[in-house]
Parts: sequence; structure tokens; C-alpha cells
Amino acid sequence: MKAVGLIVEYNPFHNGHLYHVQQSRKQHGADCVIAVMSGSFLQRGEPAIVNKWSRAAMALHNGVDLVIELPYIYSTQHAEHFAFGAVSLLEAMKCDSFCFGSENGSISSFKQLYDIMAQYEEPLNELIRQYSKEGNSYPRAFSLALQSLNIKLENDIDLAMPNNILGFQYVRAGLANNYHIRPSLINRVAAHYHDSALPSGHIASATSIRKALMDEVAEDVQSFMPAFSWNELNEYAVKNNLLHSWEQYWPFLQYTLVSHSAEQLSQIYEVEEGIQHRLKEAALLSESFEQFMANVKTKRYTYTRIQRICIHILNNVSKQKMKQLMHKPSYIRILGFTDKGRQYLSEKKKQIELPIVTKPGSFTDEGLALDIHAATIHSLPLPYEQRRQVLQREYKQPIILKKACL
Amino acid sequence: MKAVGLIVEYNPFHNGHLYHVQQSRKQHGADCVIAVMSGSFLQRGEPAIVNKWSRAAMALHNGVDLVIELPYIYSTQHAEHFAFGAVSLLEAMKCDSFCFGSENGSISSFKQLYDIMAQYEEPLNELIRQYSKEGNSYPRAFSLALQSLNIKLENDIDLAMPNNILGFQYVRAGLANNYHIRPSLINRVAAHYHDSALPSGHIASATSIRKALMDEVAEDVQSFMPAFSWNELNEYAVKNNLLHSWEQYWPFLQYTLVSHSAEQLSQIYEVEEGIQHRLKEAALLSESFEQFMANVKTKRYTYTRIQRICIHILNNVSKQKMKQLMHKPSYIRILGFTDKGRQYLSEKKKQIELPIVTKPGSFTDEGLALDIHAATIHSLPLPYEQRRQVLQREYKQPIILKKACL
Repeated sequence: MKAVGLIVEYNPFHNGHLYHVQQSRKQHGADCVIAVMSGSFLQRGEPAIVNKWSRAAMALHNGVDLVIELPYIYSTQHAEHFAFGAVSLLEAMKCDSFCFGSENGSISSFKQLYDIMAQYEEPLNELIRQYSKEGNSYPRAFSLALQSLNIKLENDIDLAMPNNILGFQYVRAGLANNYHIRPSLINRVAAHYHDSALPSGHIASATSIRKALMDEVAEDVQSFMPAFSWNELNEYAVKNNLLHSWEQYWPFLQYTLVSHSAEQLSQIYEVEEGIQHRLKEAALLSESFEQFMANVKTKRYTYTRIQRICIHILNNVSKQKMKQLMHKPSYIRILGFTDKGRQYLSEKKKQIELPIVTKPGSFTDEGLALDIHAATIHSLPLPYEQRRQVLQREYKQPIILKKACL
Repeated sequence: MKAVGLIVEYNPFHNGHLYHVQQSRKQHGADCVIAVMSGSFLQRGEPAIVNKWSRAAMALHNGVDLVIELPYIYSTQHAEHFAFGAVSLLEAMKCDSFCFGSENGSISSFKQLYDIMAQYEEPLNELIRQYSKEGNSYPRAFSLALQSLNIKLENDIDLAMPNNILGFQYVRAGLANNYHIRPSLINRVAAHYHDSALPSGHIASATSIRKALMDEVAEDVQSFMPAFSWNELNEYAVKNNLLHSWEQYWPFLQYTLVSHSAEQLSQIYEVEEGIQHRLKEAALLSESFEQFMANVKTKRYTYTRIQRICIHILNNVSKQKMKQLMHKPSYIRILGFTDKGRQYLSEKKKQIELPIVTKPGSFTDEGLALDIHAATIHSLPLPYEQRRQVLQREYKQPIILKKACL
């Protein structure tokens, strides 16, 4: 069987994702579509709007055959680590290729960029560091550094687009590690990642969809997502009396920033350069996470970087722990599969070298323990009975979708 | 001027306290009544129902002339440390005597008990330890140990009464440290400390008053407290939309127990014998603090001991920090005074050796920093604007009551 891999967050699953799944399958003539999906906390430093089980179910009902979890140690990181974890897991799953969306560019221009990066590594990194210090976001610093060195790509990639930065890191992860998996690209249609208003048409960014959901104009988003996603979101919101956002975790973050000393906070992963003092001060002065972020924000730090730091504080993840865990993936955690996904697993299981975890209760790994820990923290705002069910699910078998259910 | 000292929590100030103030002044012919009062967190391991400023105001409007704060390092401890801190502060304030309420006994029987304790220290302590291990509360273990050694006091003190245990420790603190301050005693009228139902008459225990307030039968307690206390409680509840209880801090405690490792929790003061595992397990299974306590409770630990452990976890107070701070008081923090209290201070200030702190903003001390830290944690459930005002008050001058206000 031939498999194509996707790197996703599905926060939540919408029509753009559906298009990505369908095009990837078609373009590669794949028998099986495998998605590696962030678990409880996401790359931009946010809690997932619904838990991983709901998001995996959305994927399985919309053309994905197998969903594996991108562990916390990769899912909450900047593009390079995120991409390394995700591509390594798809390589471990023996996918023939992986397919990502990009605003512009082609695979060959991403590869060319990789060659240039390898050639100019030191001066480029030095310039990126310099531009970042001056308050530019990573994409912007990257782009300015290329300009400074007079590097012009044959097929221009707009590196101010976060998906292009991610795309580049995906391609790089494959090439730098001599993986067999081949990168490929689908042009993104319509929506831009950062758009916050819903567009016309039937494709909108997840950002704008989340915003509409939180602003209680939920019906507006119905036309931008498959029916199953829409129903799942509604059921989740009714059953749990919430969709997750930073605001529900704000009391915990505030409490931690107030109760912990600057010295204790400095042990947390990514807390650097004395930012803990700034965070502590802002915590006492803010009524909400939104206000907190506005109080903390400086030119020196991007919004995303601060949010990621806060995620690590919320989850109490130390530098020491991350150092110990940040190696190549050591397990493949299955969140769910369809009949086709099951077939693929049984066909490939002898070739797959990493342990395949379907019941975390019977497998011991510090990285997996951290994923379960993060799921526990993510579940804290839920009503007691719902939380109990979600946490039981963590230790049980994954979602299994029979053909008849589709 | 002659001063009598009282050791109090005023949680909240009621008619029994009023009687205690009036009788102490009368019995000692005192010009000035000085109360050393627990700050934000109390001896039984609970948050104060209203903050220290409200409780100090209640005291000053009801016959107390000077209120000083019993620091966190003493206020959240078992009887021996609590008594040592309180009596040492009253000694430092140059009080002639201190006066405590007792269910029975006389000062001479407390003194006799002290002599016996000094004589039988080792076997007594060994027996108390043994009986405590078997699941007896400290008072009960104490009483059983005396029985085992066949010690009979001339005037029997019922050591199962928590106030008698405290009383004994007050007397002991004075004698053991060769203090000048003289202990004295007032017989408690009517209510028992542990009573949870409101009695007839006009004196009820603070426990039963708190219970009635929390159960929203607040009007029932009006006849058991001075008008100022009643008004202050009502204003506090309306302004802040709450009276403080453990339930408001439960989400923070639960979050900490879930997010911190057993190893991290073991650094916290009083977390011993692996109880952190039990606490962590119960945290996930409980919906409220009440349920949590029911889940955690074993014969091995008294309710109060577990609550005190939880207070230290909530305030993130480590063994290391407590070890560093648990010495003789190093400052006297004034929460408020009347004209008479001010007179006393100016008359005695040359004799008082400890620094007198009225504006914490201009005085540096690690113990005082912990008191302010605890006040900050205590304030977290308040609405933003109220919290801001309370925390400003922490750094400003104390409450000053002119004669005209009384």
C-alpha cells in the first residue's frame, strides 16, 4: 500500500483541510492518508479548541485513514523542531511522500533554499539572530537575512507566510536527515493563515473560524467546514459547556506566575533573558489572558513566542526535562484509524521500527507521559464527568472507524 | 502605659471576642489592648474569611488599640510554633501580660503542666509521637501520653480542647524563653470552638458563624457579633462578591497538584512521608475542596494537618524557605491603631528593639515578603479592581482610627 503523510493541527477541521486531504490522495495515488496531528497544545502556543479525540474523529470522517499524535515536545515548538518531529514520524510510518500546502513557490525552490542555507549557514544564522533581536518575527528576520546576503531564489517564496517557513523546515528535515520520504506541495487556495475575518466562498482560515466560534457567531462558520466537524464542535461545546481557549487557562497561568519565584520560573523551558520578571509583573496587573498578552508584548518577542513560553509554564515543563526528551521520536502513538488505516498498519508493522502505541497504559516512555500530562492539563476546564471520560480515553484504545460508519 | 496582649484570628470578630477584649482590659487595668492577629492564612490551614485589613478594622472598632500581624511563618503552624511567634511578638511589644481564653483550668495548672513537661520531656514526646502515629489528633495524643505516665494535674485541663493546647503552648513559650510577659486566663463562656451549629444566646463560635455565613443563612449570625463586624462582612461580600473559603482556591490547588511532579511537591514545607502521591491522586478525582479532603483523609493525618499542608502548597512555600525564616520574629508589622495605640507606640518606641514596620514598601525582610506574597495569593479570587486596592494597601500605611471615628 502506498501512503501519503500530512502534517496537521485541525483546529478545527475545515473545508481547506478537506481539500488538502483529497488533493494529496489524488496527486500521489495514495491508498492511505496518514495525518500526524498536534495533540493538546499547538504550534502557536495555544490550547487546542477541542481535544485530540474530537479532532482525530473529524479527520477520520473526512478522508484521513490514520491519525498519529505529534508529541508535545514537537507540537509546541518553533518551525524547525516542529517539522523535524512531524517529518520523522511520517518517515517512521514508511510514507512514500508527505504533502503540505504553500501560498506560493515549488518544491524545487524550497530545495534550492535548502542548498543555499547549507552553503551560507553561519552568516545567515548570524543575520537572522541580529534581525530577530531588532524585533522582527522569525519569518521577517529570515527574509531580511536573505536580502542582506543578496540571495534571490529562482521561484520566489514569500517567507513572511508562516506556512512557507514551515514548508521550508519540512523539506529541510527530510533532506538534512537523508529520509526516504519525498516532499510535495499543494497550492493553498483562498484563505491566508492570519486572516481573522470570515471570507466569502467556502474556505476560511482556522484562525477566522476559531474567532467566529469564540465570538458566538458560530452559525457563520457552518458553511466553511464539513458537516461532521460542525456537529462535533457543537456536541463538544454543549457537552463540555466550552470550547477551549487561553482564557480558561488564564487563572492557572496567573496563579503560577504569582505564586512562583522568578528563580523557579527561570527553570521552565524557553524562559530566557529575564522575561519571567516581565511575565510576573503583568500577571498581577491583568484581568484576562488577552490583557496579559497586551501588557507583556514587546518588540523583542513575537506574540507566538510569548504564548509558547506560557504553554510551557502552564504545563510546568522544565528546561531539564525538554533537554532529556528532545531526541528523535521514540514511539508512534495512534489516535485512530479506519479500516484502510488498520490494513496499512498490519501490512507495514514488520518494517516499522518504532513501537506503535495504541494503549498508553501498557507502554512506558517519558515523552508519552508528557503527552498524557498535557492532555490532563488541557482537560482541567472541563466538567468533572467529562474530564474523567477524556482521561480514561487517554489510556484506552484509539478511535476505530469501520467502513460502515463512514 | 500598661498594655495587655491578645493572640487572635478574628475570623470573623464576634461577641465572644468582644467579651475577651473587654475582660482582658478590665482584669489587667490595661491602658492599651494589643492584638497579634494571623494575616491571610490561619492556624487551622484555612484562608481568612475576609482579608487582614477588614479583620483589623473590626478589632479597632471593638476595643483593640493596636493590631499587629502574626507572620505567615507562625500563623499557619501547629500550636507550638504558632504560640512561640505570637508570644514573642507581644513580648517584643513590651506588653505586661497576655490573656487567653480557656475552657477550664487555671494559670497555675498550665504552669504545673509546663514543669511536668520539662521533667518528662523525652518520654512524653516519645509517647505523643507514638499516639499521633496511631491516628490520634495532637491534643488527644498529648492527653493519652499524660495518662500513660500517670501524670495527674492538680486542676484538670481538658487537653482535648484545642484552646487549652494553645493556652499551654502560650504559657510554655513565655516560660521557656524567660520572657517578662505574664500569662493570664479568662474562662471562655458558652461556645465551644468546634461547634458548628449556632447556639441560643449571643455568643457563638467563629466556626459556627462562618458556617452560617457560607450556608447563606447570614442574617442568623447578626445577633452573635458587634454591628461593625456585621456591616464589614456584608460590605466585603457585596464589594468583592465573595467571602473567602477554601473552595475558591481549590482550582489553584488542584491545578498545582496535577501540574507538579511528586518530586517537586516533596520540596514543599510539611509534605512528608509520601503524602504528595495521595494528594495528587485525590486531586484528579475530586470536584471540590470538600470532596478532595474527604478523599485524602486517613486516620494517619488530622484534617487540620492536611489543610496546613495544602496552604503551603497553595502558597508554594518550600522546606528550604521555612528553614531559613523560622527564627525569632525579625519585625513588627502594624496593621492599624487607634489614638491610644499610637500613644503607646510613641511612648515605647525607644524600648522596642525590633523594627516597627508601618510601610512595608520601605522595609526589606524575607519574612515580610512572604506575608505580602500570602496576601497576594489570598487576593486572587477577588475582582480585579478590589484586588488592586487590597495589594496597594499592603504597601501603604496601616489603618489609623481617630477617637472621633469610634
